Amino acid sequence: MKLGIYGYGNLGRGVEAAVRQNEDAELVGIFTRRSPDQVISESGAPVFSADDVFSFEKEIDVLVLCGGSATDLPVLSPMLAEHFNLIDSFDTHARIPEHFQKVDQAARRGEKTAMISGGWDPGLFSLARLYAGAVLPHGSGYTFWGRGVSQGHSDAIRRIPGVRDARQYTVPVPEAVAAVENGESPSLSARQMHKRECWVVAEEGADREAIREAIVTMPNYFADYDTSVTFVTEEELKRDHAGLPHGGRVIRTGATGLREENRSTFAFSLKLDSNPEFTSLVLVALARAVLRMHRRGDLGCKTVFDAAPADLSPLSAEELRKRFL
Amino acid sequence: MKLGIYGYGNLGRGVEAAVRQNEDAELVGIFTRRSPDQVISESGAPVFSADDVFSFEKEIDVLVLCGGSATDLPVLSPMLAEHFNLIDSFDTHARIPEHFQKVDQAARRGEKTAMISGGWDPGLFSLARLYAGAVLPHGSGYTFWGRGVSQGHSDAIRRIPGVRDARQYTVPVPEAVAAVENGESPSLSARQMHKRECWVVAEEGADREAIREAIVTMPNYFADYDTSVTFVTEEELKRDHAGLPHGGRVIRTGATGLREENRSTFAFSLKLDSNPEFTSLVLVALARAVLRMHRRGDLGCKTVFDAAPADLSPLSAEELRKRFL
Repeated sequence: MKLGIYGYGNLGRGVEAAVRQNEDAELVGIFTRRSPDQVISESGAPVFSADDVFSFEKEIDVLVLCGGSATDLPVLSPMLAEHFNLIDSFDTHARIPEHFQKVDQAARRGEKTAMISGGWDPGLFSLARLYAGAVLPHGSGYTFWGRGVSQGHSDAIRRIPGVRDARQYTVPVPEAVAAVENGESPSLSARQMHKRECWVVAEEGADREAIREAIVTMPNYFADYDTSVTFVTEEELKRDHAGLPHGGRVIRTGATGLREENRSTFAFSLKLDSNPEFTSLVLVALARAVLRMHRRGDLGCKTVFDAAPADLSPLSAEELRKRFL
Repeated sequence: MKLGIYGYGNLGRGVEAAVRQNEDAELVGIFTRRSPDQVISESGAPVFSADDVFSFEKEIDVLVLCGGSATDLPVLSPMLAEHFNLIDSFDTHARIPEHFQKVDQAARRGEKTAMISGGWDPGLFSLARLYAGAVLPHGSGYTFWGRGVSQGHSDAIRRIPGVRDARQYTVPVPEAVAAVENGESPSLSARQMHKRECWVVAEEGADREAIREAIVTMPNYFADYDTSVTFVTEEELKRDHAGLPHGGRVIRTGATGLREENRSTFAFSLKLDSNPEFTSLVLVALARAVLRMHRRGDLGCKTVFDAAPADLSPLSAEELRKRFL
């Protein structure tokens, strides 16, 4: 399959690397909204201007969109879905119905197949929630994230006056995880499930107490959580918090049997040194599924829920049954 | 969906219970190879002779086969797939290609959809192995089973002269699990991955040392493992080992990034108080997928790899995106 990368940040570089791990994948080019002669790709793949992508309609089997969910993808995915099979990693949960609708209309107009919200959450975690819900109808489900860097929360801190840089870790509360794994089906508030750890570089002379206060009282982001704020130097932030690790777990416990006296625990977890690199590997596997669905004439907007598992793998049905069943 | 249960042992009773947890499922009847007037169903569902199943061709949407893999399913699934959409839990790995072939031919002859090898392994664990392999191509995968009762190994012990009853637990070696979870990609022998624990009731006057020797030297089943044998009374076996717990985990670790210096760990685990009850819940969810595939004209033999995740859930695509994506 011939892939194109649209957007060349952390995720775009991850997809570039992921292509190398998939022998059936080939990178046609990287499309950037910066000046292409100022961008050198890590693998040596050719770099083009984003505006030129439309001249590659015949060359690209699936376009992998590597923009952000806040402002990029709501515009890009509907615009590009008319011309390309594509996969994006749209993760603004509340806006998924609207995004789905727009992408669906565009893809159907262009007779393309476009999958939205790929990656690990949404993505693999969504699959775990769906499968767990289907096999344990009488149960309670939980998703814990972390310990990992949340880019959205890090950005929110950076916007506070006096903050030069920041890194926010989402941390699951161990007692909550233990209770859930133990099959206790507790009712848990946001605060009881996750803690927030902030590592902040302040501008010289900034009022640290004011920054701390601005963080811990910030609605939606921090006010509902136990939040720790630690000030560090720029060097310390670079040295100790340069990576983008993440992960988490989806757990569902439920009853089985006629008298429902037996319990089952379904648990899926990921531990990732690099969130964007792993997300990229998922996107490439899903791009394979997008292309296969398109070749079968299965058009319009799709999610991970619509792709048969076999379509994610480069192996034949016979090989899959032999090696994985 | 209207389901029939064919075979009424532990698994058949599990499916009977699982139907009650699924509001869109209804149990048409239980088909037994025993005399139906000697079988009273736990839920009060009607019991019929297995021979009468063919008069229910129009009543049953999907037949759930609850026979054993050794002798029942190799005959039953091909025989019934011509007349019914069905799901079985065939788990003799080496014979899956042959079973697939026979069931496929029968189902195509009858224009039916038949899924083989449903449950948790094969089944959910197979899905985890496939997804993990697709998203971490450069990685190492492991499956650990237990702690749980292996019926096949328990039966093998029962066939030894002088043994009245027995229960065998498959136990993962904690050090091996820890090394794998730690991302070490070790090369592990059968002995290094699992231990076998045997609880045996001997006949009065039987030679216990001979029984122990017969167990620990038994090829395929025990010779390649560290095996403990403990003799107990019939009462102790009933009191302490009456349940059929099982579970296990699928773990894959792999490299990400252009220089592959980052690691990812993908882990899926199940902990089940009752193996047959949970297996049954999976079979009912898969029966739903079988029926939907059949209604779309997707005929022949299928496995879990062929069913779109959405097809396992009673929820609509919109609800799934809203609740699980």
